[in-house]
Amino acid sequence: MRATVIHGPRDIRVEEFPDPTIRRPTDAVVRVVASCVCGSDLWPYRGVTDTSSPSRIGHEFVGIVEDTGSEVRSLAPGDFVIAPFAISDGTCVHCRHGVHTSCAHGAWWGGEDEHGLPVDAGQGERVRVPLADGTLVATPDQPAEALVPGLLTLSDVMATGHHAAVSAGVGAATTVVVVGDGAVGLCAVLAARRLGAERIVAMSRHADRQDVARAFGASDIVAERGAEGVARVHDLLDGIGADAVLECVGTKESMQQAIDATRPGGRVGYVGVPAGGAELPIRQLFGSNVSVGGGVAPVRAYLDDLLPDVLDGTIDPGRVFDLELPLAEVAQAYAAMDERRSIKTLLRP
Amino acid sequence: MRATVIHGPRDIRVEEFPDPTIRRPTDAVVRVVASCVCGSDLWPYRGVTDTSSPSRIGHEFVGIVEDTGSEVRSLAPGDFVIAPFAISDGTCVHCRHGVHTSCAHGAWWGGEDEHGLPVDAGQGERVRVPLADGTLVATPDQPAEALVPGLLTLSDVMATGHHAAVSAGVGAATTVVVVGDGAVGLCAVLAARRLGAERIVAMSRHADRQDVARAFGASDIVAERGAEGVARVHDLLDGIGADAVLECVGTKESMQQAIDATRPGGRVGYVGVPAGGAELPIRQLFGSNVSVGGGVAPVRAYLDDLLPDVLDGTIDPGRVFDLELPLAEVAQAYAAMDERRSIKTLLRP
Repeated sequence: MRATVIHGPRDIRVEEFPDPTIRRPTDAVVRVVASCVCGSDLWPYRGVTDTSSPSRIGHEFVGIVEDTGSEVRSLAPGDFVIAPFAISDGTCVHCRHGVHTSCAHGAWWGGEDEHGLPVDAGQGERVRVPLADGTLVATPDQPAEALVPGLLTLSDVMATGHHAAVSAGVGAATTVVVVGDGAVGLCAVLAARRLGAERIVAMSRHADRQDVARAFGASDIVAERGAEGVARVHDLLDGIGADAVLECVGTKESMQQAIDATRPGGRVGYVGVPAGGAELPIRQLFGSNVSVGGGVAPVRAYLDDLLPDVLDGTIDPGRVFDLELPLAEVAQAYAAMDERRSIKTLLRP
Repeated sequence: MRATVIHGPRDIRVEEFPDPTIRRPTDAVVRVVASCVCGSDLWPYRGVTDTSSPSRIGHEFVGIVEDTGSEVRSLAPGDFVIAPFAISDGTCVHCRHGVHTSCAHGAWWGGEDEHGLPVDAGQGERVRVPLADGTLVATPDQPAEALVPGLLTLSDVMATGHHAAVSAGVGAATTVVVVGDGAVGLCAVLAARRLGAERIVAMSRHADRQDVARAFGASDIVAERGAEGVARVHDLLDGIGADAVLECVGTKESMQQAIDATRPGGRVGYVGVPAGGAELPIRQLFGSNVSVGGGVAPVRAYLDDLLPDVLDGTIDPGRVFDLELPLAEVAQAYAAMDERRSIKTLLRP
């Protein structure tokens, strides 16, 4: 089979590998129907994080179960499944607390499982899925083709945007600001709207992303950034800032912008992978009683809640995909996202 | 009248000042019945923070209203009142959100009010109270003498411990760790118990404080600190740490200990005034989904909730006072707390 390998900055290749097989009785083998490139894949692509040796890459995919190990109970060949970006057993103490990303037996796509066996990554044709019962979520029926992009966002970006909103305590009367207009930020707008927020300010400088933000439920757009952007947010929100700010970038600057846009006593929900030496300014947080919560999203914990809304069309997060390419052109997908020609690119094996 | 002045490290004096009078129609003048020394008063006493010029000091007191300005509506001479450690109008947008410490017209004891007029501090005989309707809370009747210490804790330490517990989301099924065995940490134990937590681990090395922690509801005591203390907490709590950790010290080390003692997905509620260059380790927080909330406690917001429980004896936070001195001996009160001979010292003018 073919799968994507990153060799170093801006060096993305499709290479041949043996087809994966069941290695453990809790495994499944999944044929990928669709995968995609994540904003966090751009960190090694840009050389911001190091690629010490060639690595399989991609952590978002949906597909069809082809084979299951002898201990797999909840899945059968032919099932359409969503793969969260973290592998989890669903039974350990952390999973029971809903923090599947801290699973005691967990692993990551493209890494190694708890037995030291290599795990395939998502940007390929097939994947061996460890702990398949805990990790994968099957749809009740074969979904319509038009739903595939939306279901694919449940692997990561939609559930991650939702995690930002939940972590910031978004509810019916909440005023919300979203920092970041990538796919996660746009999904955070959609998640905030879904949770009942009516005033949602999206911070975005790009017309195409502003359009998606409005379609997802943003009531206001602020194009300015930094102190100027914060001043505009204060103008819009009672002169004090938002109850809840969703930080979906991960830089020191974006986090500071998020904190500055939060009213005293409000909450920052953050899901941007922290890049560089970002630490949190505790004296400012202390004086203003602004809390900070979030982190790497426990996607699996949210799928029972989010999946029905995608299946019945209540939300259509698949709109974040504005480019579709065959797996053979995965390098172009990275380039398109790196150059902001695409919000998020879907890959078909 | 006499009032306390800090001149520099370990230089605490009682000096004479003119009796305060009504300066604004929203003022009250209060005769102090009891005041006390705060752990945070020890920062300038120890020279950790600078005292650039002699300053009135003390921000916790209860007393009797002696005079009120023409616009004061809710108070009358003779009322017994509790003074939160922050002055607030109770009507601005931040006060309406329950964040009285961010009041648009607020001020601090020993500082200046919004009109630039000096404000008395608490460790004295009398205090001019700006924005008296917003700031002061009167008891329904004259309280019994035995209740005075408990009522005095509502100025700061009991309400601050409560803020830590509320910020960490403490409820009925929560496992709790309290870092810090000063008066605030001990009150945080009491607050967690009052909110329904049944498993409360108090981290304390001092036998006298361990006794108070147990009396306040601690189920377990951990005497070790740092990594060793965290390991003991993990031993006690499912191998994963606590749902909620209440940080009541304010050093970089105590905050790290609090974060390390929190299970993935749990919450740190912090009220220790950040000393030194403490920042929060965002990568660790991100990976473990540990959130951090709290700050300078909006005491006024909690008094309607806490006061009845003190008045009817449901809680007795006054037990944190283990030494009582006359105002003339205030310097000895600082020394006793500095040398940990006293948990908290009450002053009688």
